[in-house]
Amino acid sequence: MSYPARKVNSPSRAVVIAFLGAVLTGTALLSLPVAVAEGREASWSSALFTATSAVCVTGLAAVDTAGHWSVFGETVILVLMQIGGFGIMSLASILALLVSGKLGLRARLTTQAETQSLGPGEVRRVLLGVAKVTLAVEAVTAAILTVRLATAYGEPLGRAAYLGVFHAVSAFTNAGFALWPDSVMRFVRDVWICLPLALTVVIGGLGFPVYAALRRHWRRPSRWSLHAKMTLGMTAVLLFGGALAITVSEWTNPATFGPLSPGLRILAGFFHSAMTRSGGLNSVDTSQMHENSWLISDVLMFIGAGSASTGGGIKVTTFALLGYVILAEIRGEPDVTAGRRRIPEHLQRQALTIALVSVAAVVAGTLAMMMITPFPLDRVLFEVVSAFGTVGLSTGITPHVGTAGHVVLTALMFIGRLGPVTLGTALALRVQTRRFRYPEERPLVG
Amino acid sequence: MSYPARKVNSPSRAVVIAFLGAVLTGTALLSLPVAVAEGREASWSSALFTATSAVCVTGLAAVDTAGHWSVFGETVILVLMQIGGFGIMSLASILALLVSGKLGLRARLTTQAETQSLGPGEVRRVLLGVAKVTLAVEAVTAAILTVRLATAYGEPLGRAAYLGVFHAVSAFTNAGFALWPDSVMRFVRDVWICLPLALTVVIGGLGFPVYAALRRHWRRPSRWSLHAKMTLGMTAVLLFGGALAITVSEWTNPATFGPLSPGLRILAGFFHSAMTRSGGLNSVDTSQMHENSWLISDVLMFIGAGSASTGGGIKVTTFALLGYVILAEIRGEPDVTAGRRRIPEHLQRQALTIALVSVAAVVAGTLAMMMITPFPLDRVLFEVVSAFGTVGLSTGITPHVGTAGHVVLTALMFIGRLGPVTLGTALALRVQTRRFRYPEERPLVG
Ligand SMILES: [K+]
Ligand SMILES: [K+]
Repeated sequence: MSYPARKVNSPSRAVVIAFLGAVLTGTALLSLPVAVAEGREASWSSALFTATSAVCVTGLAAVDTAGHWSVFGETVILVLMQIGGFGIMSLASILALLVSGKLGLRARLTTQAETQSLGPGEVRRVLLGVAKVTLAVEAVTAAILTVRLATAYGEPLGRAAYLGVFHAVSAFTNAGFALWPDSVMRFVRDVWICLPLALTVVIGGLGFPVYAALRRHWRRPSRWSLHAKMTLGMTAVLLFGGALAITVSEWTNPATFGPLSPGLRILAGFFHSAMTRSGGLNSVDTSQMHENSWLISDVLMFIGAGSASTGGGIKVTTFALLGYVILAEIRGEPDVTAGRRRIPEHLQRQALTIALVSVAAVVAGTLAMMMITPFPLDRVLFEVVSAFGTVGLSTGITPHVGTAGHVVLTALMFIGRLGPVTLGTALALRVQTRRFRYPEERPLVG
Repeated sequence: MSYPARKVNSPSRAVVIAFLGAVLTGTALLSLPVAVAEGREASWSSALFTATSAVCVTGLAAVDTAGHWSVFGETVILVLMQIGGFGIMSLASILALLVSGKLGLRARLTTQAETQSLGPGEVRRVLLGVAKVTLAVEAVTAAILTVRLATAYGEPLGRAAYLGVFHAVSAFTNAGFALWPDSVMRFVRDVWICLPLALTVVIGGLGFPVYAALRRHWRRPSRWSLHAKMTLGMTAVLLFGGALAITVSEWTNPATFGPLSPGLRILAGFFHSAMTRSGGLNSVDTSQMHENSWLISDVLMFIGAGSASTGGGIKVTTFALLGYVILAEIRGEPDVTAGRRRIPEHLQRQALTIALVSVAAVVAGTLAMMMITPFPLDRVLFEVVSAFGTVGLSTGITPHVGTAGHVVLTALMFIGRLGPVTLGTALALRVQTRRFRYPEERPLVG
């Protein structure tokens, strides 16, 4: 694996081309007649949408995944998810490494950051590391699911293992495709299915730099990188805060949590919260949730998961960093600090840029979808944020938004998958040195 | 007029208390039986809502302004609007002056900013200046409206003058109350009513620092302050861009622009665009507009008008400044510059804080309103942004959101009116000096 470090945009462009290549190959395979189930018709448009959704590990489905595809088609989707998840995690890690190399030795010597102590020669180690973590977590999850499906649901062992592997991959890569027509709603009362899936999604959403930090200083949290601390802390806050909000909001909804016991309602709330960051499986009918729960989910999906993970969104560190900026501002502190570390001004601007460009993408996507579909704002916004955050939860309108709607959602998935990563890299690599400064002037704000 | 410069929060607190006092006095007067029309019942809750709406120059109405109040009640509303508009413009200007005084001579000597060349002794001059501009603009608008109402609509001269003054004040203060039951929909074909109202709203929304810059260097735009240039440029972009978007979106809507001639459709689009920043009168039925137009309006209303003006929102300079930050970031420039002036880092953080805290207020308000009312997201979001931006346009649900809904909207109006101004001042006054710095560390973002 080599990468050109000379031209600033090249790494980002290479990533985009690699993803496009995977999408087009997947589209070609999924549009073969052998890819669809008997009695179904192969089509370019559903193949393109599904391939994009799988490679971008989004999980939004224009056709019912369980019924539409043959075993060959399902296997293609499985491989595309695995490639997409592995690809985004390792490529984002390598880009981070490239940035840290470009930023030079000074930054590395003055900090303890794991992400910056990786040298450019370690690309191979990153790829191996990502592969190891991916296979290890997926193997454990697949084993648990297989045993449970075989023992509690009487699936033959081969079928149980197939389902176990597919959904373990779907969970770790945060893809969210399921081979049951109701996603995993039939398992809403089964803690042995829901909990492994939720935890696998959360682990996949932490990202490689966090694994590296944890592995290196397992017993000494004080030596974890700021990145690892922020990602773990913010993930915990969003996971449990989101679970609480969703559980309260849906507590008495007869179409979702209502029929469950109190304990199972909490499990379902935790499951949904985990899936918004950005797993995309659903254990209750998302289309029947309260509008309020959709709005809460919109916020969680937009924030998304960890950097260099299989998850999407603007990333928890971006969100946390903006929070630290506001905190410093309200306290009147001249520096923005987090955990006794100073956040460079340049990084604050990067976080702001990623967040605001993402808001612009969601607003533009929502306006476009409102124009070309007849659906109300709450459902459209949910679907747009779900596509942008590569979450794949749906209020049920995705199969009915038409070809133009699918084009918009496809574009949003692609932009949401690669935009924040490549934008972050491009921005970080583009720092110019200052030649002269204009005089300062303060317009009023607020 | 004196103000305590020692305690950091005191000026902001004084402003809040002054506004609360005006609201409570207005509530007391409007809850008198003499304030309502014959056959109507005086009530505390509608009096509180209307007084808040008038003092905060929002214009949202829980009762029909045209039918519910007596001439005494209408006069109270007129006076409350005038006090609110004059109050917010002069108080925001004085707070800006206080900030510039606190920031010290160094900043003043090194820049050409008008807002910073005002000294603390000039409070009196600010109050006089605001009063002069207010009365001058209102007098011209009132004269035009009076002549038009008397000649083209056969109103008796006294009634025409009363209506002219009321709506001139309502327009300049960006309040948006109207004494016709259909707001100004009956005048949608009358350029002599619509254009003066729209221009008066726009002028009121520029703000005192812009008037001061224009007056001082009328013929030399190159010497205008950065604040004046940014406000005027961004206002023009939003005004004409918004007019274009709304005109296109509503062009064929049979319930709004459809029946009009092409020229009048453009006038109505311009009028609506002007009213989102943040006049609040409507010349077509807002509740019949396309959902897309509501979304476009949401964006315009959230951005709002100029700093230290009668308008609301996060302010055009806050929005423009964030744009410059992103531009600098994408170009890879180490400094954020606008018009050959460097924007200090601290001000960038202030703008970010104001924008994100405002987003949080709108999201929280929307969640609350979704919980306590049965209305769909598009209408609720519009109403919440309209209240927060003190715009007063409505999709028609405000009279039907119940007491709890009115409490939420009242809080949003108050927060939206005073939040950005006082937050901006408090933040600017709170800059501490740096005693020691933590070492730098870069978490990943995006
Ligand atoms: K997903
Ligand atoms: K208003």
